Amino acid sequence: MNKDKIPKIKPELGGGLRDYLPKDMIPRQKILDTIRGVFESFGFLPIDTPAIEKKVILTGGDPEFKKQLFEIKSPDGEGDLALRFDLTVPLARVVSAYPNEIKKPFKRYQVGKVFRGERSQAGRFKEFLQFDADIVGAPSVLADAEIVVLMNETLTRLGVKNFLIRINNRKILNGLAEFAGFKEEKTGEVLRAIDKLDRDGWSSVEKDLSIKLKSKDSIKAIKEFINLSISGEPLVRAGKIMKKSPTASMGVEELERISGYLKAYGIPEKNWKIDFSVARGLGYYTGPVFEAVLKDLPQIGSIFSGGRYDDLVARFGGQTIPATGASVGVDRLFAAIEKLGLVDSQTSIAKVIVLNFDENCVEYVAEITAKLRRAGIATNLYLGQEKSLKGQLAYAISEGYEYVVLAGSEEKSSAKVQVKNIKLRTQTTVSLKDIEKGIVINTKINLS
Amino acid sequence: MNKDKIPKIKPELGGGLRDYLPKDMIPRQKILDTIRGVFESFGFLPIDTPAIEKKVILTGGDPEFKKQLFEIKSPDGEGDLALRFDLTVPLARVVSAYPNEIKKPFKRYQVGKVFRGERSQAGRFKEFLQFDADIVGAPSVLADAEIVVLMNETLTRLGVKNFLIRINNRKILNGLAEFAGFKEEKTGEVLRAIDKLDRDGWSSVEKDLSIKLKSKDSIKAIKEFINLSISGEPLVRAGKIMKKSPTASMGVEELERISGYLKAYGIPEKNWKIDFSVARGLGYYTGPVFEAVLKDLPQIGSIFSGGRYDDLVARFGGQTIPATGASVGVDRLFAAIEKLGLVDSQTSIAKVIVLNFDENCVEYVAEITAKLRRAGIATNLYLGQEKSLKGQLAYAISEGYEYVVLAGSEEKSSAKVQVKNIKLRTQTTVSLKDIEKGIVINTKINLS
Repeated sequence: MNKDKIPKIKPELGGGLRDYLPKDMIPRQKILDTIRGVFESFGFLPIDTPAIEKKVILTGGDPEFKKQLFEIKSPDGEGDLALRFDLTVPLARVVSAYPNEIKKPFKRYQVGKVFRGERSQAGRFKEFLQFDADIVGAPSVLADAEIVVLMNETLTRLGVKNFLIRINNRKILNGLAEFAGFKEEKTGEVLRAIDKLDRDGWSSVEKDLSIKLKSKDSIKAIKEFINLSISGEPLVRAGKIMKKSPTASMGVEELERISGYLKAYGIPEKNWKIDFSVARGLGYYTGPVFEAVLKDLPQIGSIFSGGRYDDLVARFGGQTIPATGASVGVDRLFAAIEKLGLVDSQTSIAKVIVLNFDENCVEYVAEITAKLRRAGIATNLYLGQEKSLKGQLAYAISEGYEYVVLAGSEEKSSAKVQVKNIKLRTQTTVSLKDIEKGIVINTKINLS
Repeated sequence: MNKDKIPKIKPELGGGLRDYLPKDMIPRQKILDTIRGVFESFGFLPIDTPAIEKKVILTGGDPEFKKQLFEIKSPDGEGDLALRFDLTVPLARVVSAYPNEIKKPFKRYQVGKVFRGERSQAGRFKEFLQFDADIVGAPSVLADAEIVVLMNETLTRLGVKNFLIRINNRKILNGLAEFAGFKEEKTGEVLRAIDKLDRDGWSSVEKDLSIKLKSKDSIKAIKEFINLSISGEPLVRAGKIMKKSPTASMGVEELERISGYLKAYGIPEKNWKIDFSVARGLGYYTGPVFEAVLKDLPQIGSIFSGGRYDDLVARFGGQTIPATGASVGVDRLFAAIEKLGLVDSQTSIAKVIVLNFDENCVEYVAEITAKLRRAGIATNLYLGQEKSLKGQLAYAISEGYEYVVLAGSEEKSSAKVQVKNIKLRTQTTVSLKDIEKGIVINTKINLS
């Protein structure tokens, strides 16, 4: 190809998209490894599904979803496709598609990119990573408790100390119309307004509600209801207030049982709370809902959230299959963990780099590199354009290597290498035979 | 939502797409972990980039790419976007976009979905996982050798024994016109024809070439050239034949140096071979190219391949930055490894499941589960709809658990549990205190 013909193209991303360079990806992968470890230790199993789904699978035929979907067409002509906006709908599809392969209860985890075409906001991206755990075919609220326990364990293992898992029940919210005295069809609007309480505060929510509801008594009742969460023992008082609504009463009873299970599991009481202001935006929740927030970073919103969605699978099979789960917003969690100072800055994974500054010794340094790796030591070999020892050493230091291995003609002829410990500023001569055994500077390199 | 209103939707995928259920995902993740481990041990660092790129980034302004691109439009109106078809072009963009953050040489790995809208074939999907390793800013063929060494080590660690890394050089192929006596602009067509040699055999390729080239002597020369690879010591004889072409001669010299480096690294000679028939389809290669095939499964094609592409980064910066790398086709590799019998069928990750058949003991089994997990034992808790001990036991056996922990009122009142070892068909009574220490059946559960 003639280079003159190549047009120069600006190396930029579309709006609301971002890259992760190694300094972000190394700690991010540690977070993903930790999450996966916890999920697997709870008996969750991995699945993977395509990013591309048929549009009707994602929307369930609901045109309102259209606004955030990335619609696509396959180059071979197949249309009506779109990029998934979460991992829960694909799970529901999978459960319906493989009734014989998947034995229930089915505890699955999945990590993958999801796509939402919302207008970009600070910290919100159009493409982001979710890490989900769900239990399908589990009707008991013990399964909901298991999800909350999973959330607690995950955040604890990530080193997050000051978090709160707020728990509510959609059944209580669905009964709200009955005891606050507004029309049932207004429930959706009212919940969406309440959902903004955390972000916007009561006075903004009240203003919003006064547009939607005519009765001041209803708004007063909603406020009283929300305030239940602020006081201690909200469940005891809620039981009394909600007597008129059988749905809400059942919701209260479920929360009481979840509370009992969480105590049995030994979850510290400071880590969770019954909170009637939690609504969760997505339409498919039917029972308990949960969201974890960081007490030190309330403005960041929930970083791990979910709930019970007993009707979603019915979209595909007709059959109702009880399901509950939660999802980590990995990018938001990472941003939070970084802000909390829990991220170790790290620019290299291998701790050893072999330099390559003498053109008569290229095969010798390749041999040294191979021997170190064979001894189980993660080792880089300098392959760049810098020819001087000094320049290569500067690279090794700037990239965070701990040990630099170097060899010129003299070392080659005596089957030796020089090993520099950058931190300790020491240099030792080591024989190739010792290198083979993974010994440098008289001690085995600590691989941890 | 009124359930009657929910239309039943067929839980199916679009064409050329597939799901991975746990029995496939568990071994697939082990493969990914192994690859990542090897890549990191060579000093490669992770990055991540969006699946969505600006279309012009992907095509480089070349309209021919259009046929396989999934074009998309953001719901907020931003157009001219598409899904990436590989991870190499996004790497080139990243290298140009962050000149200060990324120090060269830059050794990066990336794993992610790529999208190609080709018509579906057996074993080919429109969305598939690639795992790439590249070295940017590395002009020496030592870097190419490092990539071949990485391929060798990765396949070896995956347990693949009978593989062959075939190595060629685009410079030799680019010089082909000179010594076979055809017009230079025909080179692309001729290479595409040669690229099918492995799949279709020589007589098909010859037929194809006879349409493209008029001279029978040219075709004869191409055949002689390809046959060089079949004989031993192709480089020695190639050096003589290719003297007329300076480009090809340089290519031969590079391959000689790579061969020397591979010997220095100690790569077994049976694992690699200089093979002039390797062309690699993608347009951007400029130097050495490599592809690994499985000798026991030649029909599956290459499972790990790549090469040097010194001009690609110039698309964005104007500046030529030497780069080389290779990509694992994870799905194809997995299919191959499965066919070779190297995949252990595994349906559970946790080895222990706590049953839950007595409604008076739910909190007790939750406590047992929590204690086992706290002792570091991956433990599932039965959360399904089956209420009988027998039914839950059958589930535990079918899902591949090794230990079943059960507790009824009697165990609860004496702070004990029953532990069944499914394989040995033994049952032991264990105290809750021992469970807390991770002791079941008088031995610590082997977590490996």
